[in-house]
Amino acid sequence: MSKGKVLLVLYEAKENAKKQPKMLGCLENELGIRELVESAGYELVKTSNKDPEGSSEVDEYLKEAEIIITTPFWPTYVTRERIAKAPNLKMCITAGVGSDHVDLNAANERKIAVTEVTGSNVQSVAEHAVMTMLVLIRNFVPSHQQALDGRWDIGGCAKYEYDLEGKVIATVGAGRIGYRILERLVAFNPKKLLYFDYQDLPQDAVKKLNDASKLFNGVDNIVERVENLEDMVAQADIVTINCPLHENSKGLFNKDLISKMKKGAYIVNTARGAIAVKEDVAAALKSGQLGGYGGDVWDVQPAPKDHPWRTMDNGDGAGNAMTTHVSGTSLDAQKRYADGVKSILTSYFTGKHDYRPQDVIVINGDYATKSYGQR
Amino acid sequence: MSKGKVLLVLYEAKENAKKQPKMLGCLENELGIRELVESAGYELVKTSNKDPEGSSEVDEYLKEAEIIITTPFWPTYVTRERIAKAPNLKMCITAGVGSDHVDLNAANERKIAVTEVTGSNVQSVAEHAVMTMLVLIRNFVPSHQQALDGRWDIGGCAKYEYDLEGKVIATVGAGRIGYRILERLVAFNPKKLLYFDYQDLPQDAVKKLNDASKLFNGVDNIVERVENLEDMVAQADIVTINCPLHENSKGLFNKDLISKMKKGAYIVNTARGAIAVKEDVAAALKSGQLGGYGGDVWDVQPAPKDHPWRTMDNGDGAGNAMTTHVSGTSLDAQKRYADGVKSILTSYFTGKHDYRPQDVIVINGDYATKSYGQR
Repeated sequence: MSKGKVLLVLYEAKENAKKQPKMLGCLENELGIRELVESAGYELVKTSNKDPEGSSEVDEYLKEAEIIITTPFWPTYVTRERIAKAPNLKMCITAGVGSDHVDLNAANERKIAVTEVTGSNVQSVAEHAVMTMLVLIRNFVPSHQQALDGRWDIGGCAKYEYDLEGKVIATVGAGRIGYRILERLVAFNPKKLLYFDYQDLPQDAVKKLNDASKLFNGVDNIVERVENLEDMVAQADIVTINCPLHENSKGLFNKDLISKMKKGAYIVNTARGAIAVKEDVAAALKSGQLGGYGGDVWDVQPAPKDHPWRTMDNGDGAGNAMTTHVSGTSLDAQKRYADGVKSILTSYFTGKHDYRPQDVIVINGDYATKSYGQR
Repeated sequence: MSKGKVLLVLYEAKENAKKQPKMLGCLENELGIRELVESAGYELVKTSNKDPEGSSEVDEYLKEAEIIITTPFWPTYVTRERIAKAPNLKMCITAGVGSDHVDLNAANERKIAVTEVTGSNVQSVAEHAVMTMLVLIRNFVPSHQQALDGRWDIGGCAKYEYDLEGKVIATVGAGRIGYRILERLVAFNPKKLLYFDYQDLPQDAVKKLNDASKLFNGVDNIVERVENLEDMVAQADIVTINCPLHENSKGLFNKDLISKMKKGAYIVNTARGAIAVKEDVAAALKSGQLGGYGGDVWDVQPAPKDHPWRTMDNGDGAGNAMTTHVSGTSLDAQKRYADGVKSILTSYFTGKHDYRPQDVIVINGDYATKSYGQR
């Protein structure tokens, strides 16, 4: 008899799982944790069947599971109801970064720990965000479509094409991902880099950006904190969202805030879909208030077929750079978060509970991190 | 009677020309030079009709033109034959960068000057190249297509998705564009930045890259010159082409050189299409020898509808990031090269001929620049 059950919920990759053995983060390749789990005396159970809540395989397995491992890419919503029906549950591990799919308050009430692999894909997401800015501002998608379609209408592409150089770029949230985005932008010679956060960036982080800017552009005060969100978005050509989803950020980019932005500005959101109001974004893109919207996060995932962000545009085929939620699940990132899950499991199995502090979201009934704890 | 005729050959933008008055580089908006030309006593004539050679409007106008202004985006091939039929021609101006559409040897024989607006879109092209690297390595196109199509197959995207971080990136040519690409890559934490060129980068340029790398990654010798092209491409995860098209670079990336690359590596070419052999690129992508090919230059432009680069892929919908030739014609770039053309015209009209040295390709019967002069 096993000591307990570890439930793994991952996306299925089917034939791609074998073709690409580096794809550790799919159901078939199991993050490479089977041996570790079994040698610790635990049983590994797994499924990709997580919906509908109440009658999915996840619900069935949760009755006995001690640990559940999920991802943001194929999120299992660990709701209050599900927690109530999981009497043995001790820990939720996010293979990746971002644990808002877990009801953290409900977890705290039951003293269930919630951990994630902080930093495992911050560079991946930062890259995706910078790519998305370039894709939007350079109007890549319509121009690629022209290539595919056999057309050659330079004016039809160029009319929405700008350089990133010389623009004001603002991040909501300057944590691990937001800051890395700023780092990657300095050499593009922005006019200004702005950030909105509940705290100042550390002085050495600011100095690094300014030193780099001095080196590349001769401008030594490139980065600036803005205290008021509306003031910040009013100045920005591109706003990128890099804060967690929590009670205060849900629905933040609604019609009202978007109306305060510069006309034709862009939003890049690789944080969480629910931080923006989907109907308001689609309407602002259509009206020209937004020049473009891109990112890879959706308010429910998988996004339904009729989600407006799938097909929205500016009325002229431009301004949409959405992808499915893949920014954090590059093959390089999968290696890193698989390693991180192994490390958390080892710490749990050995009873040491010596987790990396930055990996712990809630533990022993309380928030361990400020970024989720602001409520 | 006018002193002479200035012939302007630009792409038509039709209704987009009025909608977007910043689009100076189209036929309708005339680079904003009409007043300048007419106040100097010259006549401005214009057309977008450049083919077929011998019977196009360009051929008709060339009989009298003293100056021809063209672009790389809608290139007018100023061939030996056309030059022979243009007895008054004194100068070819490229509104943009790259004058390989002019037969420079034939121009020299007639002492026709060839000028361009050096630097006017180097940042635009560098941005496009970095964007294309990210689009390919992060597998953007298939993931965006999934969003559009109502699908959600994370494994199907992730199997070809990597991070730019930690990769070896190599440029063929480290001139104004190639160097700017290296600058923009440093903060992405590459493993190594390599370059192949006929001369060393200036010491201060190398120091700048290494200083930035030290700042971002703690690595202080990030950039390295490789003397042998085959040695360089064999080490690179991404090769970017940033040299002019000339007799030695034509067809350089053929089956043989591509076979020396790392399996699954990427090529990004925003220089000139004819530097790569189209059939060899398409075959290497199909076989998996190339992981992807992207860029915005084609061996003839506009590219014919059946050009293989339009629709080539890796057999599984990935690996193509082609666009029409738009990288250097962003609205920001159009402003810069329109200003540059005005400056060249003013210098010509006043008889001062005090061009910026870097804008002169050939003059008084000889090459003025090393980058084209290596023959």
